Amino acid sequence: MEFRIVKKDKQTRARAAVLKTDHGDIKTPVFMPVGTQAAVKAISPQDLNDIKAQIILGNTYHLYLRPGSDIVRQAGGIQKFNAWRKPVLTDSGGFQIFSLNDLNKITKDGFEFRSHLDGSKHFFSPEKVIAIQRDLGSDIMMVLDECVSYPSEFNYVRNSVKLTVEWARRSMKAYKQIPPKHDFSQAAFVIVQGGVYEDLRRECALQLIDLNFPGYAIGGLSVGEPKEAMFEMTELVAELLPHNKPRYLMGVGKPEDLLDGIERGVDMFDCIMPTRNGRNGQAFTSTGVVNIKNLVHREAFAPLDPECGCYTCRTFSRAYLRHLYIAKELLILKLLSLHNLNFYLRLMEAARKAILEERFYEFKSEFLTKYHNKE
Amino acid sequence: MEFRIVKKDKQTRARAAVLKTDHGDIKTPVFMPVGTQAAVKAISPQDLNDIKAQIILGNTYHLYLRPGSDIVRQAGGIQKFNAWRKPVLTDSGGFQIFSLNDLNKITKDGFEFRSHLDGSKHFFSPEKVIAIQRDLGSDIMMVLDECVSYPSEFNYVRNSVKLTVEWARRSMKAYKQIPPKHDFSQAAFVIVQGGVYEDLRRECALQLIDLNFPGYAIGGLSVGEPKEAMFEMTELVAELLPHNKPRYLMGVGKPEDLLDGIERGVDMFDCIMPTRNGRNGQAFTSTGVVNIKNLVHREAFAPLDPECGCYTCRTFSRAYLRHLYIAKELLILKLLSLHNLNFYLRLMEAARKAILEERFYEFKSEFLTKYHNKE
Repeated sequence: MEFRIVKKDKQTRARAAVLKTDHGDIKTPVFMPVGTQAAVKAISPQDLNDIKAQIILGNTYHLYLRPGSDIVRQAGGIQKFNAWRKPVLTDSGGFQIFSLNDLNKITKDGFEFRSHLDGSKHFFSPEKVIAIQRDLGSDIMMVLDECVSYPSEFNYVRNSVKLTVEWARRSMKAYKQIPPKHDFSQAAFVIVQGGVYEDLRRECALQLIDLNFPGYAIGGLSVGEPKEAMFEMTELVAELLPHNKPRYLMGVGKPEDLLDGIERGVDMFDCIMPTRNGRNGQAFTSTGVVNIKNLVHREAFAPLDPECGCYTCRTFSRAYLRHLYIAKELLILKLLSLHNLNFYLRLMEAARKAILEERFYEFKSEFLTKYHNKE
Repeated sequence: MEFRIVKKDKQTRARAAVLKTDHGDIKTPVFMPVGTQAAVKAISPQDLNDIKAQIILGNTYHLYLRPGSDIVRQAGGIQKFNAWRKPVLTDSGGFQIFSLNDLNKITKDGFEFRSHLDGSKHFFSPEKVIAIQRDLGSDIMMVLDECVSYPSEFNYVRNSVKLTVEWARRSMKAYKQIPPKHDFSQAAFVIVQGGVYEDLRRECALQLIDLNFPGYAIGGLSVGEPKEAMFEMTELVAELLPHNKPRYLMGVGKPEDLLDGIERGVDMFDCIMPTRNGRNGQAFTSTGVVNIKNLVHREAFAPLDPECGCYTCRTFSRAYLRHLYIAKELLILKLLSLHNLNFYLRLMEAARKAILEERFYEFKSEFLTKYHNKE
């Protein structure tokens, strides 16, 4: 993997870069649609290509349990399995293990957990998570970490950071020792934790930087903390991280959050919001959020967003989309997910263009002025 | 509407024809995907165009209740409302009124019914059903009829046939008197009933033929009667119907049933089977029905049907499709529905080609030999 910065903004810490993988180049800032089970919900690879997605996510925990990483390996890796021939990043699944079952246990060695599908017992160590991702063949593998909940006591987080750093060391060793199973290279990204504690974030970041990973994620945010805390931590960590490595803010967020992240030097984002909110009838548009079920759209024969060029907006009226939603027609799940993903992807594209043209800050405020003038 | 027979088979009653509408020509025999609520479940107009669908169905009862026929009229007709620019046939909804609520009542004048959505009271007369379909703007409007259940007593069916004929008379009058609301023409099709009673089918057909409708449907079949009875009735009615008018066998059926219908002179078919069975994990293939959830597909990296050219078969393996189904991923609903619809449409295309080449019977037996050699 190669990471090349194309342009740095002068007014902010925003940057435009290119991340090269064996499955293609990724222009950053980039938003990565979430495809937990090797599929973006209600969206096909054809749809993803139509909206020019560059990279999608998968989840190690979910794919390990179902269909099983052996199946994905036999298929030739996740890109062949799900017919998405471009880059894939797999999250480790540590976050899912914790959020899906209170009884799961963390030890010095890893996670003891029970499958949310059949209750079977499993164990994830840092090494095992790398080995599974070698089977999956993701272009970017995330190391195992502990994502602490918010709020958490300082002492708990301090110990957790120690564990995360120790696991990162073991992950780097495993990354070097466990060879690829497929004929392309895979990068490993490490995750900076530390809750909302500046000292712990700094300590964690500095220790992980010493390990010299190909990429760095900022994790454990967007878990309920105040937005100011999220961006303070992001800013603090992003400033410490090496300038020549990609930075990934995990699980963030709303369109405005992405711009705030970019401004602080973040290159990569993922979030379930465009697809999940789409399935719930919520659309992101250039003039703010639209709830398609509202009665006001009953006789609205204009597109969802006249400025949007996605299939949904080129083809259907709000009145029809509302009808589909109210009538519980499956097609609406795709149409709003597709529109929202396109909105996120075009926002990142526009942000990149603005960075290249040295007007990111201006772009951001123009976008927000219009966006907050919502229905 | 114009109906032109291109070729009649010599060995069977099969025929290839062209049905001309203001929204385009329909080559028959034709299968019409069902889009009850102005959407084919999980399938977009783009998908329908990809698989070369020629005409889709809508349902008067459903669209009258939701979104309301006024909305569809304001949109410029159903083809503009749902962005499917090709022909649409709307069923009257008499069948739905009966199947959705036991308390609904039939009178000499029409159906008294309660909405399955909110319990509100409504009344459908033959005239009202034509008026609603004028709002909807379907290219082919179906008249109101009574679809008797199976089994039904001879006397009940005899009276029902009288009613259906009387309603057909009123429908023809309404069809002539209620002008179109849109700038294209709409044809009305009448429906031959009579249960499984030869005499009643004959009587009904002959009386309806006198009314000189643009097209004739054979209704009240595929409702639980033995398959032999279904085809006896189809054959009997199809022989009586005018040769220069399209014949539509409603709600039928399996791939083999379509071929049996074509052989007896049927031109048009509709059925929810390809989409509903697709959503339940069942795929129609050239070598028979495949249940994608079966364990045998776990490591099957070949396509669903190597002979199929649909997006699903061109792109994904059985192993991936099985994974999507087992993991309850929404994408599977589209992928199997699309494949099944394509299978039905290509079967009709191949049947037409065989008729044109004077080898329909041969084609049918070749297809069935292969199809019944299923997994």
